Amino acid sequence: MESKLRVVQLGLGPIGLEAARLVLSRSSLELAGAVDVDPRLAGRDLGELLDLSEPAGVIVQTDLASVLRAVGPDIVLQSTGSRLADVMPQIETVIRAGANLASTTEELLYPHRRHPEEARRIDSLARKGGVSILGTGVNPGFAMDALGLCMSGVCRRVDSITIRRVVDASTRRGPLQRKVGAGMDPGAFRKAAERKELGHVGLLESLDLLAAGLGFELDETQEMLEPVIATEPVRTNHVAVTPGRVAGIHHTARGSFRGRTRIDLDLRMYVGAADPVDEITIQGDPEIRNQVHGGIAGDEATVGMLVNCVRNVVAAPPGFHTMADIPLVSCNG
Amino acid sequence: MESKLRVVQLGLGPIGLEAARLVLSRSSLELAGAVDVDPRLAGRDLGELLDLSEPAGVIVQTDLASVLRAVGPDIVLQSTGSRLADVMPQIETVIRAGANLASTTEELLYPHRRHPEEARRIDSLARKGGVSILGTGVNPGFAMDALGLCMSGVCRRVDSITIRRVVDASTRRGPLQRKVGAGMDPGAFRKAAERKELGHVGLLESLDLLAAGLGFELDETQEMLEPVIATEPVRTNHVAVTPGRVAGIHHTARGSFRGRTRIDLDLRMYVGAADPVDEITIQGDPEIRNQVHGGIAGDEATVGMLVNCVRNVVAAPPGFHTMADIPLVSCNG
Repeated sequence: MESKLRVVQLGLGPIGLEAARLVLSRSSLELAGAVDVDPRLAGRDLGELLDLSEPAGVIVQTDLASVLRAVGPDIVLQSTGSRLADVMPQIETVIRAGANLASTTEELLYPHRRHPEEARRIDSLARKGGVSILGTGVNPGFAMDALGLCMSGVCRRVDSITIRRVVDASTRRGPLQRKVGAGMDPGAFRKAAERKELGHVGLLESLDLLAAGLGFELDETQEMLEPVIATEPVRTNHVAVTPGRVAGIHHTARGSFRGRTRIDLDLRMYVGAADPVDEITIQGDPEIRNQVHGGIAGDEATVGMLVNCVRNVVAAPPGFHTMADIPLVSCNG
Repeated sequence: MESKLRVVQLGLGPIGLEAARLVLSRSSLELAGAVDVDPRLAGRDLGELLDLSEPAGVIVQTDLASVLRAVGPDIVLQSTGSRLADVMPQIETVIRAGANLASTTEELLYPHRRHPEEARRIDSLARKGGVSILGTGVNPGFAMDALGLCMSGVCRRVDSITIRRVVDASTRRGPLQRKVGAGMDPGAFRKAAERKELGHVGLLESLDLLAAGLGFELDETQEMLEPVIATEPVRTNHVAVTPGRVAGIHHTARGSFRGRTRIDLDLRMYVGAADPVDEITIQGDPEIRNQVHGGIAGDEATVGMLVNCVRNVVAAPPGFHTMADIPLVSCNG
């Protein structure tokens, strides 16, 4: 019988709480600690936060370093932010404590092109510390990158890849509905978009991971963010949208070489989307047209992927890994 | 600039020839040798066998050991047979020569359950020899196993998985059309099926790889082979089928635990199949329904996967690997 892998959950927002719940349910894993900066959560048992019928025996604490010292986990699951700059201090603390890390930080998926110094620093620290680091999730992390790479495995040649994802934001957590601008005035949306306060973080990271995995050289990348305007009223648990207001985002990224598009990513996330789907088309030999009907449920899938990665990250050689170089992640609960 | 990986192609049937062609086209690879037992091929240049406009500079030889000694390749690509027993001597020769191996031998995909002694022997020899061994392909190797594991990566829980593949055998190589019995009398088909002369090799290996990757315990596995009977005349480059004769196979495998089906594989390969498809349904949380429209083109895909694996197999730690434990294979030509 293998011993259980000891996990600390860092960040107890909607994703982090569900990840903790999943860790608790897995016989191969032990939830050894839970950390969040929010002082209102400090001292409370996770069983209470998760509405379990009994205490989980894990008390939320605010100081990451002291939890890591006390617990000595195999791995930390991080879901505290989207931007690499915001989470770097936590990553360094985890590495110094000798723990592996899997993270839903969107910019950590493939920082080698946009944040090369941080990427090198994490890799170097991780190698010295003998631990592995991975950025993962469903988007980025799977639907618009790793799954496309997986599908390409059967191709003799890939000329270009097109990935289209439509997400019904009504089914997603409140913070995500706000991140896509649901309910906003279109003018205010455009101003907020210019200030980078809206939109999906990670599309360019998906593009970079695809380019790396497919061996594509790109000489131009373009990103565009437009609002999807509601044509009918939509009401969710978190927001009410009237016709003419913003329902969500249409966010695209394109990578090309010598004027020819090689990677085309098209993401619509809006409340009331009627036909959620994940579609991957590979132009090449053979051609591939893959569809996940109804799409991949984002929040559940992010939690699943994060926890399913644990085994692979712990087993990986020291260093900074991407979804393109760790072994295939399957649901091994 | 990385140096090219040196490849020897072992087996020059339809798959092996196309693999050699693909290796020749990849700037990261060098075709360093080609071996086949057929004396009619010996001494001929691959450029001639591939209908290239000029010689490839690679002469087909019949003696594997002497080619390996002369060439010292990084990896051997093997496509010589379906059954492990038939190819074991070649595998041992490759390992003794210190070369890595990727193989389309169907029974090599996951032999740990059906051929545990051979699996252990290969793993032990490979570790001693410092080389890596992998069984791969499209089916088994991708469509009915690795792709399902990949899709499960986003699931918090998998209750069961159903994979349905419909292949239009008319588009496939002649040996495959004969392997599915196209053109036979239904009575003769059943007798040949009982003698295991017909059917797809590898369905049980797909089932075993899925069970291992999903952590499923199975207490019963069932395999069934039925003919698909032609209802209209079908003519291919290799065979003519009249109504009432066999068009191909309907081959199923099922794995269950305590009476409950956990893995359900359904493969139809027949000439004239109107709607080729690869469909994966995961019952769990979240549910996943994935479809490759038009299906994954079998022969092209097998060749693509075999050659795309090269980089990962060469980089893998010594030992016997499966598609579930090497890094994600992408088209990196």
